[in-house]
Amino acid sequence: MVVVMTPDASDTQVDAVVSRVRNIGGEAFVSRGVRRTIVGLIGDVDQFRALNLRRMAGVADVIRVSTPYKLVSREHYPSRSTVVVGQSSERPGVSIGPGFFTLLAGPCAVESLDQALEAAEMARAAGASLLRGGAFRPHTSPQAFRGLGKSALRILAEAGAATGLPVVTEIMDAKDIDLVSEYADMLQIGARNMQNYALLDAVGRIAKPVLLKRGIQATVEEWLSAAEYVAQRGNLDIVLCERGIRTFEQATPATLDISAVPTVQRLSHLPVIVDPTHASGRRDLVLPLARAAIAVGADGVLIDVHPDPDSALCDGPQALAGSEIRELASAIRRLAPLLDRRTTEVAAAMVPEPR
Amino acid sequence: MVVVMTPDASDTQVDAVVSRVRNIGGEAFVSRGVRRTIVGLIGDVDQFRALNLRRMAGVADVIRVSTPYKLVSREHYPSRSTVVVGQSSERPGVSIGPGFFTLLAGPCAVESLDQALEAAEMARAAGASLLRGGAFRPHTSPQAFRGLGKSALRILAEAGAATGLPVVTEIMDAKDIDLVSEYADMLQIGARNMQNYALLDAVGRIAKPVLLKRGIQATVEEWLSAAEYVAQRGNLDIVLCERGIRTFEQATPATLDISAVPTVQRLSHLPVIVDPTHASGRRDLVLPLARAAIAVGADGVLIDVHPDPDSALCDGPQALAGSEIRELASAIRRLAPLLDRRTTEVAAAMVPEPR
Amino acid sequence: MVVVMTPDASDTQVDAVVSRVRNIGGEAFVSRGVRRTIVGLIGDVDQFRALNLRRMAGVADVIRVSTPYKLVSREHYPSRSTVVVGQSSERPGVSIGPGFFTLLAGPCAVESLDQALEAAEMARAAGASLLRGGAFRPHTSPQAFRGLGKSALRILAEAGAATGLPVVTEIMDAKDIDLVSEYADMLQIGARNMQNYALLDAVGRIAKPVLLKRGIQATVEEWLSAAEYVAQRGNLDIVLCERGIRTFEQATPATLDISAVPTVQRLSHLPVIVDPTHASGRRDLVLPLARAAIAVGADGVLIDVHPDPDSALCDGPQALAGSEIRELASAIRRLAPLLDRRTTEVAAAMVPEPR
Amino acid sequence: MVVVMTPDASDTQVDAVVSRVRNIGGEAFVSRGVRRTIVGLIGDVDQFRALNLRRMAGVADVIRVSTPYKLVSREHYPSRSTVVVGQSSERPGVSIGPGFFTLLAGPCAVESLDQALEAAEMARAAGASLLRGGAFRPHTSPQAFRGLGKSALRILAEAGAATGLPVVTEIMDAKDIDLVSEYADMLQIGARNMQNYALLDAVGRIAKPVLLKRGIQATVEEWLSAAEYVAQRGNLDIVLCERGIRTFEQATPATLDISAVPTVQRLSHLPVIVDPTHASGRRDLVLPLARAAIAVGADGVLIDVHPDPDSALCDGPQALAGSEIRELASAIRRLAPLLDRRTTEVAAAMVPEPR
Repeated sequence: MVVVMTPDASDTQVDAVVSRVRNIGGEAFVSRGVRRTIVGLIGDVDQFRALNLRRMAGVADVIRVSTPYKLVSREHYPSRSTVVVGQSSERPGVSIGPGFFTLLAGPCAVESLDQALEAAEMARAAGASLLRGGAFRPHTSPQAFRGLGKSALRILAEAGAATGLPVVTEIMDAKDIDLVSEYADMLQIGARNMQNYALLDAVGRIAKPVLLKRGIQATVEEWLSAAEYVAQRGNLDIVLCERGIRTFEQATPATLDISAVPTVQRLSHLPVIVDPTHASGRRDLVLPLARAAIAVGADGVLIDVHPDPDSALCDGPQALAGSEIRELASAIRRLAPLLDRRTTEVAAAMVPEPR
Repeated sequence: MVVVMTPDASDTQVDAVVSRVRNIGGEAFVSRGVRRTIVGLIGDVDQFRALNLRRMAGVADVIRVSTPYKLVSREHYPSRSTVVVGQSSERPGVSIGPGFFTLLAGPCAVESLDQALEAAEMARAAGASLLRGGAFRPHTSPQAFRGLGKSALRILAEAGAATGLPVVTEIMDAKDIDLVSEYADMLQIGARNMQNYALLDAVGRIAKPVLLKRGIQATVEEWLSAAEYVAQRGNLDIVLCERGIRTFEQATPATLDISAVPTVQRLSHLPVIVDPTHASGRRDLVLPLARAAIAVGADGVLIDVHPDPDSALCDGPQALAGSEIRELASAIRRLAPLLDRRTTEVAAAMVPEPR
Repeated sequence: MVVVMTPDASDTQVDAVVSRVRNIGGEAFVSRGVRRTIVGLIGDVDQFRALNLRRMAGVADVIRVSTPYKLVSREHYPSRSTVVVGQSSERPGVSIGPGFFTLLAGPCAVESLDQALEAAEMARAAGASLLRGGAFRPHTSPQAFRGLGKSALRILAEAGAATGLPVVTEIMDAKDIDLVSEYADMLQIGARNMQNYALLDAVGRIAKPVLLKRGIQATVEEWLSAAEYVAQRGNLDIVLCERGIRTFEQATPATLDISAVPTVQRLSHLPVIVDPTHASGRRDLVLPLARAAIAVGADGVLIDVHPDPDSALCDGPQALAGSEIRELASAIRRLAPLLDRRTTEVAAAMVPEPR
Repeated sequence: MVVVMTPDASDTQVDAVVSRVRNIGGEAFVSRGVRRTIVGLIGDVDQFRALNLRRMAGVADVIRVSTPYKLVSREHYPSRSTVVVGQSSERPGVSIGPGFFTLLAGPCAVESLDQALEAAEMARAAGASLLRGGAFRPHTSPQAFRGLGKSALRILAEAGAATGLPVVTEIMDAKDIDLVSEYADMLQIGARNMQNYALLDAVGRIAKPVLLKRGIQATVEEWLSAAEYVAQRGNLDIVLCERGIRTFEQATPATLDISAVPTVQRLSHLPVIVDPTHASGRRDLVLPLARAAIAVGADGVLIDVHPDPDSALCDGPQALAGSEIRELASAIRRLAPLLDRRTTEVAAAMVPEPR
């Protein structure tokens, strides 16, 4: 940390800062400038924070120069990580990380077995290797559809088994951790819950990969700090998902922060994917944004698909169907290799005929 | 709702929209403009939403003209509400609402019985009628102090009893609802949890007042929708708390949205208070912002106080002490009456001597 | 400045930074931490910036610890300044600064002599000591009314003379500097032009006070840097005006950053006033926000008034009239003295009768 | 437009709205809902705006359903436009628009003839068909380098002639319009000046293409409205340039709004390019963001290059050099054809050797 003194700080005030730091075993180096004196601190940042140096007389500012996260940082693990989902004695699992490009797809909300099976087939045909579907659904409006819950988990697992796709679903309440873990191969923390510490605690203690969406208000540093929270509890199988941040622009429901992908890859070893569906809110934007995600170097994309978007109970306007899915599959097949990534399709499958 | 057609929408496309609306029992009125046709819808908004009209050919936009909240809206309850905290057969309770100006104060985190008692005395001396203290503490950094938990609840209750102040504390996990309710007179939902639906559900089902902080990313509409979520479960004793939103400005940790106070008072009957402490992050800004809150017409303010801010385990730089508290008390006494509000001090008490 | 090295930076890389700094006559102090080395720089910041240190191998970050503005800073002029508008051999001028509370009021756009005279009378009756009116009007929509230009300047000057109020008007094009200076006592730089350097240059070279509005996207530091730009050209008679910043919240056209007032007063000696009209966009919000501005410690407020808002050519929905103006006048008279400020009314005048 | 009445609006109030609209020749259709009445308006939006309907009793809101721009809208010109830069009797000019992918490159600031020539060679070798260089430089800090002005224009023109590249440069003051037009083939309006109407007016009246950068605070609608302003004065040769918007995220200087590209292409016929340099502020982010721009469907990218970024007088940390430029050239050559775009290189040229 660096303590910046006010221009008129006295020597006594500078000495007081140095003393307080040394009292707890830290080191302090004083640099007297033309207009200001700064004090560089060496030691335990958490201890320094407890000193409340900012309240001391003559202190103008205290600047942190290290990051608040360690386990998820590339400073500790320089090589980028690969997270494997759905691995068991019977199947190899699906890789998310450098060298791969992974498509996660499925219905925003599981509505029925038929719908889930059809959506899972669409997902697989488009090259998806993971099936994502909603059983518990957060919603800003208290009137909106909130998901089928446990029965949706069963349906999702059945659709996954039928198509050979490991399944990913959102957990919204820490008390559901055993239930959701029983059915899902990967647990999603939604954007609204990125700083729900009870939930982060729960997924940090299980042995399943976690998909951690960025909160719409979260800085990259806060997002990585949330991942650190999970990692500290023992679970380092974390995949980050950029899904748009809240800005003044209202043309889209959120502003996809595409720069966050290379930014995160520079700071953290964790894989990072992009959800272009919720950022755009319109199916005609999903494809261009998915292409941008591939080209920027993301490790995968997460897409809403639905066999009949017009009747979808949730987020129909942004779900892909029919020809849109074929275009997406084609874009991934053509672009990913140019970025030195291979797709992780579970099985060769024909893209279904136009509806 | 209003459906806006594209300029080139055909009559057939307009008719299709009208038909789909009428099929579910809604009414649709067509207005053909020079350049565009619009269709006004009358009926159940939630049903209309399920129609996915935005996906229909020729539809440019669907505009909602009603609010997503009802129970907390002034359209349903035109008169502003008063919430009473800590009422029992032995004491009358503390009112928050029109005609009153209520000061909630206490330590960011409960650290020890001595600290809590001293802070409670400071709070009461400053004119506070409610004691707020943290037992469970959310924190962005996984290294930061997270509160003493249950023992803090007991300490807080004891400090409240000693000073005659009902107590307010934050609940962070739905499973703690019985524990926290046992000790607290009012439960706070923090900004990070404003859309934690498990938690909103829990406080919606108890018979204690709720203090609902605005999320740093939340629009006024989303904030009122979160309150609606609580109200729908049966608990209408909700006090809203503006505490700053996240913007590009980094001079303060958050930008206090002072306009939100009169905006909310126009839209909702719920009381609304202001937390100037967390928005400003600096004790020298707390007092001017508290004055602004009184003058704008807030129903109260929530302030961090600490007997020894230099040694505080949490948010020391922004806690008030000594002469700052006396200034705050004086500002409230002088300004509140000009806004036709009386303060709700529990007991006449002398402001303590300078430290 | 402080150079933060990466954790794996070599001694050679640290030495290279030190050498480059010393080569241009700067000093560099190295602090080697447990995990990182930091280098404190002493010397000319502008020279350091030209070194492109951020591009050097082993450099993680370069942190500026001083402000980019000097002339407008309290570090250079610790006492808060007072700006006097409209001073001449015949009249004393109107003060804006500590100890005063100044009301600037008038029509958003000058429409006719009658309208301007009537609005000026309303302004004076409400206690305004400066008449603000628009002759040149910026507007986002290319269809909107853009002001009467030169004839409006003449009308405004006439209305000012009739009421004894010095006049303030916006300048939008540097080429109009002589024209506008001929008629106006104070020149306003609008929010859209806060970084229009040709315009800042023009007003920096004249001997008239400047009212510098904050850009809706501008940080406090950028706002003060724009003021510095004017000051460097020789004009230090600058009054800052907070008018709301752009955020995600759409309930109001802009979010009034009330914290900016005490923040600016701590950083700069320049007076700072508040425009609650454009931030709120609704006349029912103007009064509470004006009260908040007084209470937070602003040096004045700027208010739109109009004799007949229903027929206003510009921003009618937010202009005050009749009883609203009387309420404003009353609020100022009651609140300002509590903040140790006296109002600067030019003449005792009756508040006009209700319309 | 749609007028939304309050739930308790009386029939008389509804009738008053209808009358006021009909009085100016508009039509009004009333739809009475269960809870609210809405009134659809047909006629001249600008006239309706002047009615100040929002002030009328019983009116809750007035919603605009049409866009404030027309000439630049796809509703008027459904086919996407191509802008040709530098066309003359001697050369065909460079196309920006559908089917092409155009690289604009050059130094942030022109520093000397040698530097400009070398940068121009680098630009052409990388496949650039337009040379962009700064002669007049806006800068937030009043101490920063502001460009060489007229001599830079001459140098730029000479470097353009030497390499066969038409030149693009920023104009900052309307009074320079003749000077800049004499040397440049395309005039850039910078982000800070997007709403500088004097400048928009000047470039709207000349017969040269305009490169209109998006303001960091500007919504897509405001950006298109600024383009409309230029178009209304007779110049429809406008290319839009997305360069990042201001958000809470501080990891990058601005958040590149990649979604704005397809959003604008849906709303407007004008070409839209991306500047990944200023949004990212770091050369290691420029390449991934440039790839994202190609993949999302942009019509081109604008890149800072410099022969010796370590000594650049302006924005050195983000300028590309050597191997970075070769990577960019390679990415464009491989990705653009997949998006059905051909590059518009002026001449086959070898990429220069590594420095």
